Amino acid sequence: MIFRQLFDSVSSTYSYLLAGNRGGEALIIDPVLDKVDRYLQLMRELDLRLVKAVDTHTHADHITGLGALRDRTHCITVMGERSNADVVSMRVREGERIRIPGVELDVLYTPGHTDDSYSFVMADRVFTGDTLLIRGTGRTDFQNGDARAQYESLFGKLLKLPDSTLVYPAHDYKGDTVSTIGEERAFNPRLQVKSIDEYVALMDSLHLPNPKMMDVAVPANIHIGLHQEDIARRGWSLTPQEALDVLGQPSTALVDLREARERDVHGVIPGSLHMPYDELDEHIRDGGLLHELAVATGKRIVFYCAFGERSAMAVEAAQEAGLTSARHIQGGLDAWKKAGGPLVG
Amino acid sequence: MIFRQLFDSVSSTYSYLLAGNRGGEALIIDPVLDKVDRYLQLMRELDLRLVKAVDTHTHADHITGLGALRDRTHCITVMGERSNADVVSMRVREGERIRIPGVELDVLYTPGHTDDSYSFVMADRVFTGDTLLIRGTGRTDFQNGDARAQYESLFGKLLKLPDSTLVYPAHDYKGDTVSTIGEERAFNPRLQVKSIDEYVALMDSLHLPNPKMMDVAVPANIHIGLHQEDIARRGWSLTPQEALDVLGQPSTALVDLREARERDVHGVIPGSLHMPYDELDEHIRDGGLLHELAVATGKRIVFYCAFGERSAMAVEAAQEAGLTSARHIQGGLDAWKKAGGPLVG
Repeated sequence: MIFRQLFDSVSSTYSYLLAGNRGGEALIIDPVLDKVDRYLQLMRELDLRLVKAVDTHTHADHITGLGALRDRTHCITVMGERSNADVVSMRVREGERIRIPGVELDVLYTPGHTDDSYSFVMADRVFTGDTLLIRGTGRTDFQNGDARAQYESLFGKLLKLPDSTLVYPAHDYKGDTVSTIGEERAFNPRLQVKSIDEYVALMDSLHLPNPKMMDVAVPANIHIGLHQEDIARRGWSLTPQEALDVLGQPSTALVDLREARERDVHGVIPGSLHMPYDELDEHIRDGGLLHELAVATGKRIVFYCAFGERSAMAVEAAQEAGLTSARHIQGGLDAWKKAGGPLVG
Repeated sequence: MIFRQLFDSVSSTYSYLLAGNRGGEALIIDPVLDKVDRYLQLMRELDLRLVKAVDTHTHADHITGLGALRDRTHCITVMGERSNADVVSMRVREGERIRIPGVELDVLYTPGHTDDSYSFVMADRVFTGDTLLIRGTGRTDFQNGDARAQYESLFGKLLKLPDSTLVYPAHDYKGDTVSTIGEERAFNPRLQVKSIDEYVALMDSLHLPNPKMMDVAVPANIHIGLHQEDIARRGWSLTPQEALDVLGQPSTALVDLREARERDVHGVIPGSLHMPYDELDEHIRDGGLLHELAVATGKRIVFYCAFGERSAMAVEAAQEAGLTSARHIQGGLDAWKKAGGPLVG
């Protein structure tokens, strides 16, 4: 496995680049906007293709690199289902896995620092965001923070991981790079409390100033959605209602870009085909299956995904590949459901 | 193995704590004075006992933690034989190994940034000091720096390590934490030169300002020796001449505190016993071998080592353990040789 811990000294943020091997697909956790050029350069050098950019939560101290990375690499943006961001490509919940070849992250919902804080667990390590820091814990006094919920996330979830689990947080301000669950249980001063009430009182007593970047970062980090309006202006979008009108017509092929587990959890539009987004390039090029289907049948290809992000990127790519009939459902399955569209599965 | 990369954000220095296992002995590379409390706390928490503190070279941008760590833990200070520091406990040369249980560092002499720059190689990683940085190399324009020598250190030594070797430098200013030899060979802009002359011209063209700390740090880092004068004032020292006068007398037991390889390389005072410094505590306590020897025979114990540092610490410890006859040879074997003392082996 390729693993790189990368530091943004302005916000003291740690970001993590993971990949199964050189030449393969990569995933990045908590990227910082100002460092996006460095991430992209490093991935070029390591011959990696970014396919997923994940935030542990809505950050208040730096602007996320998710939007810029999506715009520049067409990667999938991922956050927890409770994220306050307007649009991310994929939302995950506890018990699910974020996968790329050679890397699997188990999702834990660990609210407290914010109500959209998640941790990601691998066999030997955990990415704890701002929930568990090295010899500290994330503040709980803004962004729907909740010391009581954080206590449960810490004692009920993270500290139940094996002692030897490496702890990789989203920040460190004192020069540490890594710790372990066993060390934090024993030596983290915030975790030496005897009850949830003692923890809540401790967190209530901190009276921290707001982060310098907060008024800029939080709004920026909430509005990271791709501009699906641009796609609509080019005439490449169907509203959910327009999509409903053509449902079942032989002139249209609906193509679901989501991953298998998203289909299992959220259901599928009846009669739609399945082609995961990470196979897009392979199938839309001349000689690819989808290209052939469109050309041989004259069918109009209509992509959809969870929130319209992946499908908007897919339409652009398909148009560039010469599939001029390609469209997508604006707002994705989320909008489809709200418009009363039928689902199966 | 326990491995911790620790960052000093003031000087952007990386220090490295290594140990075979919890409860065992530890070694630290390039410690920073301001972070000594943190290192000691972490070692207490991990149940580690510091036995060696190593600098890759005489730093110009921060004050070394070697002296403070020696004073507070009685660890051995280690630098390369070409070090400009006044006194370190042990000097190593290329081809030798720095050992603690579970960790072995092969010493490479890699001059260029300074004339006392060394790198330390393990099976899967190398600590490159300021010789090889991530996508950079250490400046060569002061402290007897030499771009020509650095080219040889880089291309003749470090880049000959296997491609997969992890590179852990003494500094990073851009947020990287680790690289590999293969990556640096391919992507380090300073290493894309076609000849030694091109490298020298490149380094000559940099015109960097001096480090802010330089005028403070270099003198401080050169004068890190333990105050052997304090030991002398307490009457616990023999000058080399005084030691020569008692050589071979049955009333005196000379005890060599150095490691086996130091004895092989530099020779031994005739008739002296051998007790490595790391076994000191065990043997000077009541019931220990040396304690018993001193008490049973009435012999005066005279410690010696390479430069008088370990023996000065040993005298203090022995006096505290009740061995009031304990003495040491001031200046160690180095001073003994200069006084014309005989050696064997």
